[in-house]
Amino acid sequence: MKFTLETTDQNSKARAGLIETDHGTIETPIFMPVGTAASVKAVHQHELKDDIKAQIILGNTYHLFLRPGLDILETAGGLHKFNNWKGPILTDSGGYQVYSLSQRRKINEEGVKFSSHIDGRKLFFTPENVMDTQRTIGADFIMAFDECTPYPCDYRYAKRSMHMTHRWLKRCCDRFDSTTPKYGYEQTLLPIVQGSTYKDLRKESAETIASFERPANAIGGLSVGEPAEEMYEMTNIVCEILPEDKPRYLMGVGTPANILENIALGIDMFDCVMPTRNARNGMLFTKNGIMNMRNEKWKNDHSALDEYGDSYVDHTYSKAYVRHLITSREILGSQIATLHNLAFYLWLVKEARKQIIAGTFADWKTDMVERVQRRL
Amino acid sequence: MKFTLETTDQNSKARAGLIETDHGTIETPIFMPVGTAASVKAVHQHELKDDIKAQIILGNTYHLFLRPGLDILETAGGLHKFNNWKGPILTDSGGYQVYSLSQRRKINEEGVKFSSHIDGRKLFFTPENVMDTQRTIGADFIMAFDECTPYPCDYRYAKRSMHMTHRWLKRCCDRFDSTTPKYGYEQTLLPIVQGSTYKDLRKESAETIASFERPANAIGGLSVGEPAEEMYEMTNIVCEILPEDKPRYLMGVGTPANILENIALGIDMFDCVMPTRNARNGMLFTKNGIMNMRNEKWKNDHSALDEYGDSYVDHTYSKAYVRHLITSREILGSQIATLHNLAFYLWLVKEARKQIIAGTFADWKTDMVERVQRRL
Repeated sequence: MKFTLETTDQNSKARAGLIETDHGTIETPIFMPVGTAASVKAVHQHELKDDIKAQIILGNTYHLFLRPGLDILETAGGLHKFNNWKGPILTDSGGYQVYSLSQRRKINEEGVKFSSHIDGRKLFFTPENVMDTQRTIGADFIMAFDECTPYPCDYRYAKRSMHMTHRWLKRCCDRFDSTTPKYGYEQTLLPIVQGSTYKDLRKESAETIASFERPANAIGGLSVGEPAEEMYEMTNIVCEILPEDKPRYLMGVGTPANILENIALGIDMFDCVMPTRNARNGMLFTKNGIMNMRNEKWKNDHSALDEYGDSYVDHTYSKAYVRHLITSREILGSQIATLHNLAFYLWLVKEARKQIIAGTFADWKTDMVERVQRRL
Repeated sequence: MKFTLETTDQNSKARAGLIETDHGTIETPIFMPVGTAASVKAVHQHELKDDIKAQIILGNTYHLFLRPGLDILETAGGLHKFNNWKGPILTDSGGYQVYSLSQRRKINEEGVKFSSHIDGRKLFFTPENVMDTQRTIGADFIMAFDECTPYPCDYRYAKRSMHMTHRWLKRCCDRFDSTTPKYGYEQTLLPIVQGSTYKDLRKESAETIASFERPANAIGGLSVGEPAEEMYEMTNIVCEILPEDKPRYLMGVGTPANILENIALGIDMFDCVMPTRNARNGMLFTKNGIMNMRNEKWKNDHSALDEYGDSYVDHTYSKAYVRHLITSREILGSQIATLHNLAFYLWLVKEARKQIIAGTFADWKTDMVERVQRRL
């Protein structure tokens, strides 16, 4: 993996860069559509590439471990071969499930016991076996195994958890560095900054993570319910410490406004289920604000879904038709809304990149942050 | 609407023809994908046209009446404008719902009272208002309002119902002929032969329907649970009577084998939910038999979904991947399986047409009927 920092904005900490991987080059800042279980829900792989213009997608270790399972992924020759997505892939380590499945897991120093949300089967994830699992899945970017703490989080718990995440990182690095990729292309391990919403912990964690000197770094434990201002404060503290010449990935963020604000603080990579999950519920993000397609006001509106939209669905289908599909729970409604939202998110980061390169990012961002939060 | 009978097979009653409509020409025999509520489930309109090569699709009056409703369809300028499918459309009249929603309706001579399956709202469908409704929906082909009887059906009930369907047809024709299309293109009304599985009733009904001298005719009340041999016997009796120079549409049929056998008896048009509904449950129809994608045997089979398939999905995705998607209930599984099945059904009728024109249909059909019923 090679990162080239192309431009840093004069009026913010926003950056434009290039990440080269064995599966292609990623222009940053970038948004990565989430394909939890080897599929970005409701989207064909050629649509990801040609219509949405995705440059990298996500998978999730916990989900892929359960289904289809490692034997199938390994026989396939890794996740790229399995789902036929030919671009770069990043896999989350399962650390997020330590948070989201808190009722189904027990943590100790050795690792995390899960009971499968599918069939109750007992699983035990450790920093070491999560590295092995991600070697087998075969993503280009793999994440360290961490504990993503909830919000709010008691200071002592946050501190103890963070220190464990750091110890786990050492174990992850040791295992990762003593193993090799299985499918002939490079894999890059990203460590994760934790520390909840405590400035001193975030600072300590960022310094620790930086000291590992991995080729890219990530920030976790945000966008878990804390106010946006606290998220930005934490991102800011951490970005001050993480090295400039390496990509910075903010995990699980977020709304269009969150993405723009965090780009301004120096983040290069984002992922979030929001554009896909909310699409299936009829929430569309646009350049001019949010449309809830369940709203009565679209019922008889036969104009284009989004006249300013960059996806073909925006000009092929009408608001009234998409509202009908969503309220009738037709699968095509999920397909159209997902294509729209992901195309918008990819447009947003591509446009941010253009503005950064042109030196006009700061003003553009101020305007866009206001626009994208309107209710249409 | 203009029908041209191009070829009749020497060794069967199979025919190849052309149906010209204001929305384009249909090559027969043809299969019409079902788009009950203004959407062929899990398929984009451009996929219908370019990938599946559909030439005409269906809508359903009962479902469209409920959602999106007539005011919205009329404001849109009809169903074609609403869903942006630019080819021909046929709407079923609601007669099938008289059968399928038998617990939610009461029939009398005047019409049928339904209670909506969505919100319990009371509806009253009559031959007259169903014509008006279909004028507003704006399909190219619209169906007479009939009673589709169940199987088995008491002889006296079948006879009484058939006679009512004939009286309703008179009322449908009177209303249809005294009204005009709303959107500037022609609409064609098809009467429907009923008579359950009784030869004398089918004969009487076919003679009555033929006497109305409409430009195309349909056969209803089959594929409702009767043995295939009885279906073929009824189709055969009816096709002997319905005029040769008009298209014959067999409603709601069927499996690939059913379609081939009925083509051999002189049917030109088919529709069925089987390729779409069964796709969503993981059943794939192929040239060499049926694949149940939930079967363990595909779990680790990374070969192309269908190496002999005509859809791009057959060569883009593997059996193991589609099995994973179907068993994980990923929407993409429904999308891929639906594209595959519809592309196969459209291939099947297109190939049947080629064989009819080449004079090789009968032998080809015998071979294919055996093949398509295998279990892979």
